[in-house]
Amino acid sequence: MASLLARGLAGMPEVRAGDDLAALIVRARGPDQLCDTHVVAIAHKAVSKAEGAVVALSTVTPSSRAQELAREHDKDPRVVQVVLEQSTHVLRAERGVLICRTRHGFVCANAGVDTSNAPSSDTVVLLPPDPDGSARRIRARLRELTGHAPAVLISDSFGRPWRHGQLDAAGLQLRATWLAVVDAAAACTELVRAKDSREPVVVIEGLERYLGDADGPGAAALLRAPAEDLFG
Amino acid sequence: MASLLARGLAGMPEVRAGDDLAALIVRARGPDQLCDTHVVAIAHKAVSKAEGAVVALSTVTPSSRAQELAREHDKDPRVVQVVLEQSTHVLRAERGVLICRTRHGFVCANAGVDTSNAPSSDTVVLLPPDPDGSARRIRARLRELTGHAPAVLISDSFGRPWRHGQLDAAGLQLRATWLAVVDAAAACTELVRAKDSREPVVVIEGLERYLGDADGPGAAALLRAPAEDLFG
Repeated sequence: MASLLARGLAGMPEVRAGDDLAALIVRARGPDQLCDTHVVAIAHKAVSKAEGAVVALSTVTPSSRAQELAREHDKDPRVVQVVLEQSTHVLRAERGVLICRTRHGFVCANAGVDTSNAPSSDTVVLLPPDPDGSARRIRARLRELTGHAPAVLISDSFGRPWRHGQLDAAGLQLRATWLAVVDAAAACTELVRAKDSREPVVVIEGLERYLGDADGPGAAALLRAPAEDLFG
Repeated sequence: MASLLARGLAGMPEVRAGDDLAALIVRARGPDQLCDTHVVAIAHKAVSKAEGAVVALSTVTPSSRAQELAREHDKDPRVVQVVLEQSTHVLRAERGVLICRTRHGFVCANAGVDTSNAPSSDTVVLLPPDPDGSARRIRARLRELTGHAPAVLISDSFGRPWRHGQLDAAGLQLRATWLAVVDAAAACTELVRAKDSREPVVVIEGLERYLGDADGPGAAALLRAPAEDLFG
């Protein structure tokens, strides 16, 4: 009988710049309680904070474009400035939401710049600059600390405006399956993790049939060329 | 510590037209093993089959439009005819996939008409004509049989081309949260249920904070007017 168990990891401290996230996870979980068949899902904000991907708004000088967008959409011009710096394109600006293509290539609201859950009210949290690299580093460090290499999933709850998967052409089937699994695992994590809780890490058991020793293609596989996208 | 456990329900028989799904579920699960805090997630195909929402292709006469689309997209003209009958609009037809708006108002590939998992290779399975009504009937019947009313979720794995939720305006926040939970629960179910397994039912524990005695808004809440949709 197939089953899936996802549990929030209790006992994680507030993450600070420079923290060794893998070590914090191992300490909270217990060194013998992680194995290759687990998925360790980490809220991207914990990764961003550990990597120092936060910006103090007091250090930000809004450009004239940021000031104009902020006026039009009733937003803090310094936050808009940070959003613009994280973006290669602003695709739409409607009803207070800037839909941006980030420097990674993700399309999301406000370029993933988050004003909630920041270390202080004067700070915003960015997306990690290289989430795939972060996941691989954390996985390698977990392997170093425990001898086991659970899958590492860094997730955000941003409402991606389109889903990938079943509409991909046949040649992309494997990739599509992989994406659907990652997408679903991230969604399942969101159910476990109350938004403001101190549980940035959720450990999922029961997905071993999808896991392998090699690192996966990463979030880079989420990015597809606009021409590939039926709804682009 | 927050946690979520999703388990496939072993022992479900192949569902046939006229079957009492709730009774089959109670028999497989055990009458004392369901409670108000559980979510019973049922693959829509089991509901469709029980309700007789299947079509024998030998009874279908393709229209000239169906024949033309079938030629262009290398599909069975009888299947295309069924897809057209289930649709109010064909929004796009590309690379062998017809993106349709169904009579319910859902936008999905091939109007949800499924040629896999059908009772025989000459049969296709439709979406249930009124999934919300089906869910409410099954829930009422479970209450009748066991004295308990778990939430009932009828899900499909169709790749909806857009996600709802965070981009909704503030006034729709509650609805957005509800949709995100339902969406995530359905995704989590997909992880548990191997595509072709005989486990059309997955029971989820750990979502009690989202459940209430009253029936929810149903899938009708998934439908939003095109004007509301930033990516419409």
